[in-house]
Amino acid sequence: MKDPVYKIIELTGTSTTSIEDAVTKAIRRAHQTVKHLCWFQVIDTRGNIGKGKIHHWQVTIKVGFAVEA
Amino acid sequence: MKDPVYKIIELTGTSTTSIEDAVTKAIRRAHQTVKHLCWFQVIDTRGNIGKGKIHHWQVTIKVGFAVEA
Amino acid sequence: MKDPVYKIIELTGTSTTSIEDAVTKAIRRAHQTVKHLCWFQVIDTRGNIGKGKIHHWQVTIKVGFAVEA
Amino acid sequence: MKDPVYKIIELTGTSTTSIEDAVTKAIRRAHQTVKHLCWFQVIDTRGNIGKGKIHHWQVTIKVGFAVEA
Amino acid sequence: MKDPVYKIIELTGTSTTSIEDAVTKAIRRAHQTVKHLCWFQVIDTRGNIGKGKIHHWQVTIKVGFAVEA
Amino acid sequence: MKDPVYKIIELTGTSTTSIEDAVTKAIRRAHQTVKHLCWFQVIDTRGNIGKGKIHHWQVTIKVGFAVEA
Amino acid sequence: MKDPVYKIIELTGTSTTSIEDAVTKAIRRAHQTVKHLCWFQVIDTRGNIGKGKIHHWQVTIKVGFAVEA
Amino acid sequence: MKDPVYKIIELTGTSTTSIEDAVTKAIRRAHQTVKHLCWFQVIDTRGNIGKGKIHHWQVTIKVGFAVEA
Amino acid sequence: MKDPVYKIIELTGTSTTSIEDAVTKAIRRAHQTVKHLCWFQVIDTRGNIGKGKIHHWQVTIKVGFAVEA
Amino acid sequence: MKDPVYKIIELTGTSTTSIEDAVTKAIRRAHQTVKHLCWFQVIDTRGNIGKGKIHHWQVTIKVGFAVEA
Amino acid sequence: MKDPVYKIIELTGTSTTSIEDAVTKAIRRAHQTVKHLCWFQVIDTRGNIGKGKIHHWQVTIKVGFAVEA
Amino acid sequence: MKDPVYKIIELTGTSTTSIEDAVTKAIRRAHQTVKHLCWFQVIDTRGNIGKGKIHHWQVTIKVGFAVEA
Repeated sequence: MKDPVYKIIELTGTSTTSIEDAVTKAIRRAHQTVKHLCWFQVIDTRGNIGKGKIHHWQVTIKVGFAVEA
Repeated sequence: MKDPVYKIIELTGTSTTSIEDAVTKAIRRAHQTVKHLCWFQVIDTRGNIGKGKIHHWQVTIKVGFAVEA
Repeated sequence: MKDPVYKIIELTGTSTTSIEDAVTKAIRRAHQTVKHLCWFQVIDTRGNIGKGKIHHWQVTIKVGFAVEA
Repeated sequence: MKDPVYKIIELTGTSTTSIEDAVTKAIRRAHQTVKHLCWFQVIDTRGNIGKGKIHHWQVTIKVGFAVEA
Repeated sequence: MKDPVYKIIELTGTSTTSIEDAVTKAIRRAHQTVKHLCWFQVIDTRGNIGKGKIHHWQVTIKVGFAVEA
Repeated sequence: MKDPVYKIIELTGTSTTSIEDAVTKAIRRAHQTVKHLCWFQVIDTRGNIGKGKIHHWQVTIKVGFAVEA
Repeated sequence: MKDPVYKIIELTGTSTTSIEDAVTKAIRRAHQTVKHLCWFQVIDTRGNIGKGKIHHWQVTIKVGFAVEA
Repeated sequence: MKDPVYKIIELTGTSTTSIEDAVTKAIRRAHQTVKHLCWFQVIDTRGNIGKGKIHHWQVTIKVGFAVEA
Repeated sequence: MKDPVYKIIELTGTSTTSIEDAVTKAIRRAHQTVKHLCWFQVIDTRGNIGKGKIHHWQVTIKVGFAVEA
Repeated sequence: MKDPVYKIIELTGTSTTSIEDAVTKAIRRAHQTVKHLCWFQVIDTRGNIGKGKIHHWQVTIKVGFAVEA
Repeated sequence: MKDPVYKIIELTGTSTTSIEDAVTKAIRRAHQTVKHLCWFQVIDTRGNIGKGKIHHWQVTIKVGFAVEA
Repeated sequence: MKDPVYKIIELTGTSTTSIEDAVTKAIRRAHQTVKHLCWFQVIDTRGNIGKGKIHHWQVTIKVGFAVEA
């Protein structure tokens, strides 16, 4: 694959504990259906709040993976 | 689904009448193939012009939906 | 008030019908507690979706108003 | 005109009723002096407020048109 | 409250340990004076350094909350 | 106050003479009602024009101040 | 198809020779599985370097195509 | 002129002394050929340097003016 | 011309072959009616696609030129 | 040093565990050669993926430090 | 030097009096160690506040200079 | 080098012929003094014009390289 082509998809992972955990969950889910995941980039970090506490971290990432020729 | 993961896709809806109609049409089309659409965000509002009149509003949105575990 | 000073607040108005209606509702609410509203700027247009239909338009605006000396 | 060149101008249309109407008025005015208008893009949506009501929607667009060779 | 209106404020939380902790502290402080906090968005992540070590993480967020009708 | 929390507000100062004077006036006004102003950032520099001359510089700033625990 | 709806996907094409070639390769690959490709926009131009020479140009594009009703 | 339309042009003014002077010169020049200048916005502040000293401040502004119906 | 003033216009050049050729064509066309072109900046690179092949590169540039005193 | 001047450099720290650890490592490395590091700002958060797991967090920061007179 | 190469560094100049003075001080300091400074661009204008008064203007610039072949 | 740290510098390469050539020249020059160049990103594409022709393409890139532990 001399000149690979990559596709980039956008996912939002969520977690009650941390930004890293939210990203990890999004990637784990993507890996179930897409092979050859290569890289990610965090593009938005948000969350929802209930009773003054963070309920879920919501981290949106772009994930790139090689598409076969 | 304690920590849901969402996928975000990008669509351009078009309409001869209004921005709201263009967005509605994009979402209606997405709903034909994707369940659990949750939210959208308008990211670009354009249009083409013919003989000095707006021909089509072209509104690009991101649409998020929950992916099953 | 030769050199006025303005304060800018950020609001999200919502509407089941249109972007214009969501902005109008945010401004009407602000007018209840703040006098001298002068201008607004739309900074984000989003919405939530239920069963493939737009439930609420959510339009975030900045609103500027003169503060008294 | 094998490889057309376009010029892009920036206009602000205003309307007491809607974003679409403000854009329409800007394009109608441009059409009086420029032929071959092709497309537009909304780049800013603002307005002024009087007594808690929107007075004018002010929508800034870029408008592209073909220039003759 | 059929068409709620939200206000968005901007806060910088600080922490010696993590980004998540800085956000949590900003939200906990906001909760003391504002009820109905709904969501937040991270908009800037900075910090100050002393003797080659991170002294404080400084994380700026926007926080949205429903305003009563 | 080991881990301080800051609030950030947005103001537009105006001046007939300079950018620096417009910022100074916005900060002076904020200081009348808010103590512990810490920093500012210029986010927009505009002005209105009358008869080909600058009438007012309008400089929008964000101002951060410590909120008490 | 009076009011068409388009989907937009994001791809990174790579090439050892030029930006144009990287874009061409990404589009050629997309054309294998998606019909009715209409337009693209370059959104990022990067590359990797080995021994002081450019190894691959990596050009990320958005590609729009009409989805059938 | 119930719903005015404005045109926006982009200019770079230069000055050996200050940002304000560069803006003033650009507006004065525009006023020679365009009437009804209404507002400006600073969009870029640059300069060239000779022998370690600022030679010219180069300030790019957008200037809006009402176009006649 | 001690403190020159520049005007900046926006053009889209098109080419079937390359980005450089599209820019060159836009500048050549501008040169027919405007003297003293000084610099350009690429601000958008797009294209249209037909049958899986790039039909036209569409490169939008800003072009600055000195206006006479 | 009444009016200090600061220099800002850009670094990417990497870590297998967290964003905070990647930033810490970049700052620790910078401290080996530059004294008086004052502040940092996170400007990009990325990572590479192997077999569906995050291999390295790659966090790009700007770091500011006082330069001596 | 037919095809010169430039390096761009980022500096923050400070001043108790004006934006122009802060930029001037940053450039003067850079000139002590780097020859052939060519241009600068203002990228951020901030300041710190003490007792309701601006203490220091902090203006961040990019400065370009020719590197020798 | 388990968790490498990278430094990113900004360069402007110039060329009379193409964007690719301008980038190549900037990287070649950087390689004279910095080893282990890893990647680059194009962040600005400009040029100067003389007599209606492009004189130099000026392409600004960020270049990342591994710093030794």
